[in-house]
Amino acid sequence: MNMKLTLIGIGTGNPEHLTLQAIRAINAQDLILIPRKGAGKSDLAGLRRAICAEVLSNDATRIVEFDLPVRDEAIADYRERVDRWHDAIAHQWQGAITPGARKVALLVWGDAALYDSTLRIAARLDPTPELEVIPGITSLQALTAAHAIPLNEIGAPFVVTTGRQLRDNGWPEGVDTAVVMLDGECSFQSLPPEGLEIWWGAYVGMKEEITRAGALAEVAGEIIAKRAEARARHGWIMDIYLLRKGGWRRFPAGN
Amino acid sequence: MNMKLTLIGIGTGNPEHLTLQAIRAINAQDLILIPRKGAGKSDLAGLRRAICAEVLSNDATRIVEFDLPVRDEAIADYRERVDRWHDAIAHQWQGAITPGARKVALLVWGDAALYDSTLRIAARLDPTPELEVIPGITSLQALTAAHAIPLNEIGAPFVVTTGRQLRDNGWPEGVDTAVVMLDGECSFQSLPPEGLEIWWGAYVGMKEEITRAGALAEVAGEIIAKRAEARARHGWIMDIYLLRKGGWRRFPAGN
Repeated sequence: MNMKLTLIGIGTGNPEHLTLQAIRAINAQDLILIPRKGAGKSDLAGLRRAICAEVLSNDATRIVEFDLPVRDEAIADYRERVDRWHDAIAHQWQGAITPGARKVALLVWGDAALYDSTLRIAARLDPTPELEVIPGITSLQALTAAHAIPLNEIGAPFVVTTGRQLRDNGWPEGVDTAVVMLDGECSFQSLPPEGLEIWWGAYVGMKEEITRAGALAEVAGEIIAKRAEARARHGWIMDIYLLRKGGWRRFPAGN
Repeated sequence: MNMKLTLIGIGTGNPEHLTLQAIRAINAQDLILIPRKGAGKSDLAGLRRAICAEVLSNDATRIVEFDLPVRDEAIADYRERVDRWHDAIAHQWQGAITPGARKVALLVWGDAALYDSTLRIAARLDPTPELEVIPGITSLQALTAAHAIPLNEIGAPFVVTTGRQLRDNGWPEGVDTAVVMLDGECSFQSLPPEGLEIWWGAYVGMKEEITRAGALAEVAGEIIAKRAEARARHGWIMDIYLLRKGGWRRFPAGN
């Protein structure tokens, strides 16, 4: 009998980001897998436990926690390192899935489509499960909501990219708007700041949320300092920012 | 006393896309404005009414409908035409907001940040209201969920763009993935199809959802035909697609 694996987007740390569809999906499972990182890491296991405690009313649903393997930093090639890590996670899933569980779910931070590896790990399971994805609020949306700004200018394209891409390739071609994710190094420093505006946020959507916006030349230093301070205080940080050429001055941030 | 305007993302037509935050926001309002299009148009007023009927439990919240003005197609310049239209909509909002209403909300299809004009119209109000944005599930997410695919390849950037941009400027530079929105003309036809895969969806997230994926060269004709047929049958259509160079064959669509 084939297993059905449901990847449930839970939003970015605000329990109220949950959709009615996500709540229904949580309650339809035989088994929910919760990954545990080591101590001192981003406390997402705690958030997942809290969500289940809050919305799970089906007594038949079991929750099983498993330890997330660490990446083997001895593997020099980035892509190879990520691939082996995904293999190891898939192996942990297999071990944590109790025999006979037909409906199994993972609670995905944000949405499984956006810079998330859950779909790629799921593709490693053998036999291949039937896949279902429940969309969730992403940090893209939590960022733009926090600043009350649009992602795009009228009829214009935008790029979503990573800190590494920005450092290696500079400003993306053909667009005036870039959203940068997965950036541990404040990679906006690699750009000439003239004419660029930034809308930055950390822990977007969570009660710890901090935001800052302005001309990049004016606020870059402050963002770097705020980020370092917040990271030291919380033990982890997740941040995201939107950069725009020419700026968008019609919508002063509400917060 | 200043007015607070809340733009509540409601997702893409599945009432279960509503987040707990959206439901709480709906119930916190003095007034909810619902725009009406003419008969035979996409029936989004009906969806908004149904959502309010389902989740609004605050007897003090009033619902006021107003007629959405039509765009003046006599204005030749696109940007000018859109600007005048937004002016006219802002004027209708002003007229529909009852005196004394402190907390006013609009239910935004998808999310106010993504190819949506609500923030731009809000900026025209006088006096300027305090703005709050509640994020909602977008068609980007409903599309990728329907196909159970990621938006990005590992560590790679992607572009979100429009049908017009694709027709005028061809394949966006510097990326292997492009998501195309606001495309009334199946603009993928303007690209050489070799080496491109497409994941297409119409009415994504709604019960009318239809999807198709494959090599662009093989499925383009079928998508064009399906789209025309569905549009004729429903009287309106909203569709979106992801194009990728090289393709992503590890995740066969669940539906």
